[in-house]
Amino acid sequence: MRRRSKNRIWLLWAILCVAAPVLAQPPRGPLVVSPQINADKTVTFRYLAPQANEVKLSGQFEKAPVAMTKGEQGIWSVTVGPIKLDIYPYSFQVDGVTVMDPANVAFFPNERFKASLVDVPGDTPLVHAMKNVPHGSINYEYYPSLEGTTGSLVVYTPAGYDQNPATKYPVYYLISGTTDTEETFFKVGKTNLILDNLIAEGKAKPMIIVMPYGNIAARVAEQKGGTKPADPTVRDGADAVKRANDFATDLVSRVIPYVEKNYRTFANRENRAIGGFSRGGGQTLRTAFSNMDKFAWVCAYSSYLSPDEMERSYKPLVTNPDNTNKQLKLLWVSVGSDDFLYKGTVEFIDYLKARKVNYKSLITDGGHTWMNVKHYVAETTPLLFR
Amino acid sequence: MRRRSKNRIWLLWAILCVAAPVLAQPPRGPLVVSPQINADKTVTFRYLAPQANEVKLSGQFEKAPVAMTKGEQGIWSVTVGPIKLDIYPYSFQVDGVTVMDPANVAFFPNERFKASLVDVPGDTPLVHAMKNVPHGSINYEYYPSLEGTTGSLVVYTPAGYDQNPATKYPVYYLISGTTDTEETFFKVGKTNLILDNLIAEGKAKPMIIVMPYGNIAARVAEQKGGTKPADPTVRDGADAVKRANDFATDLVSRVIPYVEKNYRTFANRENRAIGGFSRGGGQTLRTAFSNMDKFAWVCAYSSYLSPDEMERSYKPLVTNPDNTNKQLKLLWVSVGSDDFLYKGTVEFIDYLKARKVNYKSLITDGGHTWMNVKHYVAETTPLLFR
Repeated sequence: MRRRSKNRIWLLWAILCVAAPVLAQPPRGPLVVSPQINADKTVTFRYLAPQANEVKLSGQFEKAPVAMTKGEQGIWSVTVGPIKLDIYPYSFQVDGVTVMDPANVAFFPNERFKASLVDVPGDTPLVHAMKNVPHGSINYEYYPSLEGTTGSLVVYTPAGYDQNPATKYPVYYLISGTTDTEETFFKVGKTNLILDNLIAEGKAKPMIIVMPYGNIAARVAEQKGGTKPADPTVRDGADAVKRANDFATDLVSRVIPYVEKNYRTFANRENRAIGGFSRGGGQTLRTAFSNMDKFAWVCAYSSYLSPDEMERSYKPLVTNPDNTNKQLKLLWVSVGSDDFLYKGTVEFIDYLKARKVNYKSLITDGGHTWMNVKHYVAETTPLLFR
Repeated sequence: MRRRSKNRIWLLWAILCVAAPVLAQPPRGPLVVSPQINADKTVTFRYLAPQANEVKLSGQFEKAPVAMTKGEQGIWSVTVGPIKLDIYPYSFQVDGVTVMDPANVAFFPNERFKASLVDVPGDTPLVHAMKNVPHGSINYEYYPSLEGTTGSLVVYTPAGYDQNPATKYPVYYLISGTTDTEETFFKVGKTNLILDNLIAEGKAKPMIIVMPYGNIAARVAEQKGGTKPADPTVRDGADAVKRANDFATDLVSRVIPYVEKNYRTFANRENRAIGGFSRGGGQTLRTAFSNMDKFAWVCAYSSYLSPDEMERSYKPLVTNPDNTNKQLKLLWVSVGSDDFLYKGTVEFIDYLKARKVNYKSLITDGGHTWMNVKHYVAETTPLLFR
């Protein structure tokens, strides 16, 4: 018994000492289980805050924050739903302060906000579910980027990549949204699991997916000057123009050569696709339309270019649609009917139609969310490299 | 101008719509720069909280939380240091609520608390610094674990691994601490950058490093029963015993076979090392001493086994030290003089000495921290596989 007590004591001390400098709630507090998925697909969220006056749940499955109730031991809780089966970002608002769920490891990588993720699984597995199929690998890579800086990539290689050293693969360059990071398509979009499932079912061709970081100019500034990124949401001025150009320059002149040197790829336009969400969709369209010799497959998720930008910057594409249609194997545009970009996207689709530029479009329910992004990835990857 | 304004508006809207459900502070608020490393190695931390009454900074570079001051636009700030050059976990306490730094993407993966990370770089790069050397790759892998569940691994492959398809490598199995995850040695320990630097300088042999998740029983329970992990800090009872045994069983019967099937390894005990921090150090010693045919190199960072557990469970090792010394190429034990495990670790070292079991030990400054773990990894990896 002496030993056991000692073990118990120094393990509790281990938590206390490692955690104390970074914890407000007592590390010896009760184990909080959150989120808890119930059999009826309702979800119970819990947060330990004995001193708080008000705790709310904010989740993309709810239109507005939901009040939580204080219970025993200062654990606040609320049960919501049943909610539509999917993965949702959520956070708690504790006396007006937004916090992630300390009991949940799943997080949303982003430069401007912190959120946790809740996965409400289906009895029939959803397209992003972890199934008993061969799994690919996610690789974090460093590559030589602009101005002598080092960039980061997340790269998906399909199951069997390591076992078939003679096999080459096409590559899908997939760009996340404003203030997202190179991790977001992996951690939130579950792109690796979606492709594992589609490839196992023979619905998508085995492919490499390269997920870059979107705000190259900021990373260069940070590494060169030791200063933090400029505000990536400010679109005007020289800095914004530099950011837009730097992304395309970095992708074409640094990322693609790195990937094609270090992975077994088919290095031609017919085997390169580019796609992205929100800001990444705009970067996709601008990079593709400026580099028609590099990409034959183009996917814009919840994003578009305005007709006047098309007229001003990409005139040759729309004045010679037959040539454009020969070059582009796929030009995909999708958006949710509740997306604040819905109107502009429909305007873009109508413009392409009027200009006789071939495209595929999909209008879904929902808004400008990663729930929709996962759906669009699952719809488009089976079309690529056919 | 029309276009520009429209762009500005819908980009701000993009942030608002994506962020609003998970943000308390207005997404259109000022860009907060935090942390900011100043030229004199002081660090300025900032947090936007117009409604807060009190904001404090908690960091492992300070003994106690430091009060922050409210400034313009509701941005709280404090400048600390100069502080010792290293990477430190920190968080903010906003009216008593612990929050990560929303302006900082670098985070500490853990099951019980949330913290951000600040890296105060040296003018001469530290051992974990990103240098202009060949970089290895970090791979996230799924493997078939116990009871039909799927486990997660983070695997480091050294630079050149993909370019030298005939080369085989030794493997270091490296286990993180209590409530850490399989990501902690990568995201906090910077093990990949430390090895990139040591290998580039010829100080460490190129090796594969496999970073497993420590709480296998909890993950099995979660996947099988849909229930959340049992409290990993409770050490008594059948559940705790099951956790300890399941880890060793999973590592030896599932992780090692998966790694040796999917990576180019030397599959023998002389080319397998095992090490870990805190709970992971205990798992290291128990797994190694129970599987002397599997590992020849053993590293315990800030952890130990008690003499009575050694006597009870590993008697043959200490009654025949000559044989043990022939088998173990390295038995490493290190701890900080301020570590709450210091006394027990010294007791373990004295016990090994009295029993004539060969070991290498290192006593450093500091406590039970990841700053020390990085130091121990840098000290021990050059000794492995020699």
